[in-house]
Amino acid sequence: MHILDIIAKKRDGAELAAPEIEWLINAYTNEEIPDYQMAAWLMAVFFRGMTDQETAALTMAMAQSGDTVDLSQVPGIKVDKHSTGGVADTTTLILAPLVAAAGVPVAKMSGRGLGFTGGTIDKLEAIPGFRTTLSREEFIRNLKKYNIAITGQSNAIAPADGKLYALRDVTATVESIPLIASSIMSKKIASGADKIVLDVKVGKGAFMKNREDAVKLAKAMVRIGQLVDRDTVAVLTSMEEPLGMAIGNSLEIMEAIDLLSGRGEPSLKEVCLTLGSQMLMLGGKAETPTAGRTQLEALLDSGQALAKFKEFVAGQSGDITVIANPGQLLSACLVKEVTASAQGYVAAINASQVGYVAMRLGAGREYKGQNIDLAAGIVMHCRVGQRVGREQALANLYTNDESRLEQAAVLLQQAIRIEDKPVNKPPLLLGLVDKHGFQDRLE
Amino acid sequence: MHILDIIAKKRDGAELAAPEIEWLINAYTNEEIPDYQMAAWLMAVFFRGMTDQETAALTMAMAQSGDTVDLSQVPGIKVDKHSTGGVADTTTLILAPLVAAAGVPVAKMSGRGLGFTGGTIDKLEAIPGFRTTLSREEFIRNLKKYNIAITGQSNAIAPADGKLYALRDVTATVESIPLIASSIMSKKIASGADKIVLDVKVGKGAFMKNREDAVKLAKAMVRIGQLVDRDTVAVLTSMEEPLGMAIGNSLEIMEAIDLLSGRGEPSLKEVCLTLGSQMLMLGGKAETPTAGRTQLEALLDSGQALAKFKEFVAGQSGDITVIANPGQLLSACLVKEVTASAQGYVAAINASQVGYVAMRLGAGREYKGQNIDLAAGIVMHCRVGQRVGREQALANLYTNDESRLEQAAVLLQQAIRIEDKPVNKPPLLLGLVDKHGFQDRLE
Repeated sequence: MHILDIIAKKRDGAELAAPEIEWLINAYTNEEIPDYQMAAWLMAVFFRGMTDQETAALTMAMAQSGDTVDLSQVPGIKVDKHSTGGVADTTTLILAPLVAAAGVPVAKMSGRGLGFTGGTIDKLEAIPGFRTTLSREEFIRNLKKYNIAITGQSNAIAPADGKLYALRDVTATVESIPLIASSIMSKKIASGADKIVLDVKVGKGAFMKNREDAVKLAKAMVRIGQLVDRDTVAVLTSMEEPLGMAIGNSLEIMEAIDLLSGRGEPSLKEVCLTLGSQMLMLGGKAETPTAGRTQLEALLDSGQALAKFKEFVAGQSGDITVIANPGQLLSACLVKEVTASAQGYVAAINASQVGYVAMRLGAGREYKGQNIDLAAGIVMHCRVGQRVGREQALANLYTNDESRLEQAAVLLQQAIRIEDKPVNKPPLLLGLVDKHGFQDRLE
Repeated sequence: MHILDIIAKKRDGAELAAPEIEWLINAYTNEEIPDYQMAAWLMAVFFRGMTDQETAALTMAMAQSGDTVDLSQVPGIKVDKHSTGGVADTTTLILAPLVAAAGVPVAKMSGRGLGFTGGTIDKLEAIPGFRTTLSREEFIRNLKKYNIAITGQSNAIAPADGKLYALRDVTATVESIPLIASSIMSKKIASGADKIVLDVKVGKGAFMKNREDAVKLAKAMVRIGQLVDRDTVAVLTSMEEPLGMAIGNSLEIMEAIDLLSGRGEPSLKEVCLTLGSQMLMLGGKAETPTAGRTQLEALLDSGQALAKFKEFVAGQSGDITVIANPGQLLSACLVKEVTASAQGYVAAINASQVGYVAMRLGAGREYKGQNIDLAAGIVMHCRVGQRVGREQALANLYTNDESRLEQAAVLLQQAIRIEDKPVNKPPLLLGLVDKHGFQDRLE
């Protein structure tokens, strides 16, 4: 095989055979193909797209490009969950113990974040003592013992994806459905998932700005799942306003504890119950979404979900006293209240801008490897559709960096649009894609 | 400006402004932009094309990326000629002295060849003593004295084009009309041409396989010429069979001498007269193509063209005794005749394959920097449409490498198709593109 033939074949719209894609990915990972040839191929893929078979072959080639996690000695169907990324998206911290409590083993390899807040691993490090790097043996042991383990994703997992993603990032080839879909799915598969639930965020605060594109991405991933024998379901959820109320690492842990205690923001809870019921169905623990939902609500109300979270934290050496007293996590020196400049109705909250403000306060990274302030972030006090009075608190800002506080307050106020007339709250759940296709109603 | 924005803008089909293209080319030439980003941009150009303004800006940015030749102290309109490349294409060796004899200054910077035979510089080196590397001063001096000078193209001429072409070659982005057009035009402009005549070859033996694509390329180049104030005319000529009878460096010098002496193959002569009359018109030495043609025919018949060739060769230290006795150039040890296996009519001569055989015999380079055998090559003894008898000589092969001779003979015989029925000779001149557009008849 020759790289020039493979570039030209894709350029001219022909379908690449699976062995050609495997050869390409292996040769690129082994540095036998230079970046400039891969860049030309990626741009050709941007224009020509990929067939389902090509996308599945690319996914498997990337999944098998490094270490793969073998969870066969852990009983049960391992169902992983992935979100395409939003603001105030604390779902993993809630879903993992919740679904584990329902009997589905949750084996997660998570990353650090780049952008608005940290990733799941950063958030968990806000719990004093919590160990985010488990050995393979510890990971399996905790999984067998508690039905849940979360560890940092090693660079040895799907290294081809890491290398390709870095190249896409600097060659304007990120925005390609088959490339996005195969990137996500390859990491899940290499991490040992039997089945996968995807939370595809849609809206101004998400990578997919409209439902049409989100459905395309969801379909591409579900189709990969079918072709590589990993049942996959994708739920489309709105990311027009922040999902939960907290943005920031410690703050999101606090919100997760709140929700696992049976309280919490209804939208965040609704998304967790929707994704969780799909996880239970794929994991063979529920026949219907409604049955799954009922189970999950009972686990939240009875305190079993919170108890599982405690077990999980203790199992990874975290300090469980913060679970009873989450206020201990509030370590930011500076707090500033942002208030409404006029009375009216909250017409829109620009989730991207809220996320950007949280990053500026220290909650997220602007570049890889940057230290983040685990205490920094935002707690929102309003939601779209809500009536607010003049001077009413809209949000609290938390940081240890005084120099950024004033500007952050101005930017946050600009992110919240208040109008005179009442506004309708936009829908939260925008549909579901499974092997039967797209349904715009979830049940 | 940022390279990612420029890639994305082209990717999304927007028009790049001239300063953006200048910045891109300068930054790439100065190695401030890595190959992988340029490769992504090139593939985006492959799919999106370029507007006339973009193509002109790219041409000028590449032309000005290194040294430019200033011929302003040489009186007269400097008209350069370029061929897109064919087999048995000896036109430059004939046209340069012929047009110089008519009073148009011919200042050529030529390259070495890669592929079927050497380039003009290689061919001239077949003349003993001929110096192909002139200093800038010698070049100008000869030009003033003899109206003709040819020197090797320095790497300092349009280095951006050299760097970009090398990248296109390994990223499957060669076949893009605006990239081909700007590559050709940038070198001509950097070499100091006031006006340009292009010979766009069309057919199985050429880069452009059909007239439609050739017209597109011709129009793109003529349009660049208009936009950058270098009048350009493109003639479309057929490259279905080899143009002349000789393929190989010494052999083509011999054919050029033959034609300059008023003899020679009618097709090659016809192309030379057609291109030459256009050069005379652009150079202000003829009012119409017919008047130009009459002048050129007179120069051939009177011996003035051959006399100019002698002056030119002597001016660059070449041995002029070979002009009177071209047989001296025949230094190949081995000669093999290829004969017809059946009687009939020559239905087709595969020019690419004939070129390939010449290269295998040693006349051309398979890779850059390879030594070539100046004596090696082929002299054809048949043309399409001609009736041949069984065992009649179709061609002679010349080489110093015995190991390749037998296979070459077999391949050459396969390149010549003989059929029972008479065939029509395909047309040689396929049209002309000037500022008024495409005309399928030349007069």
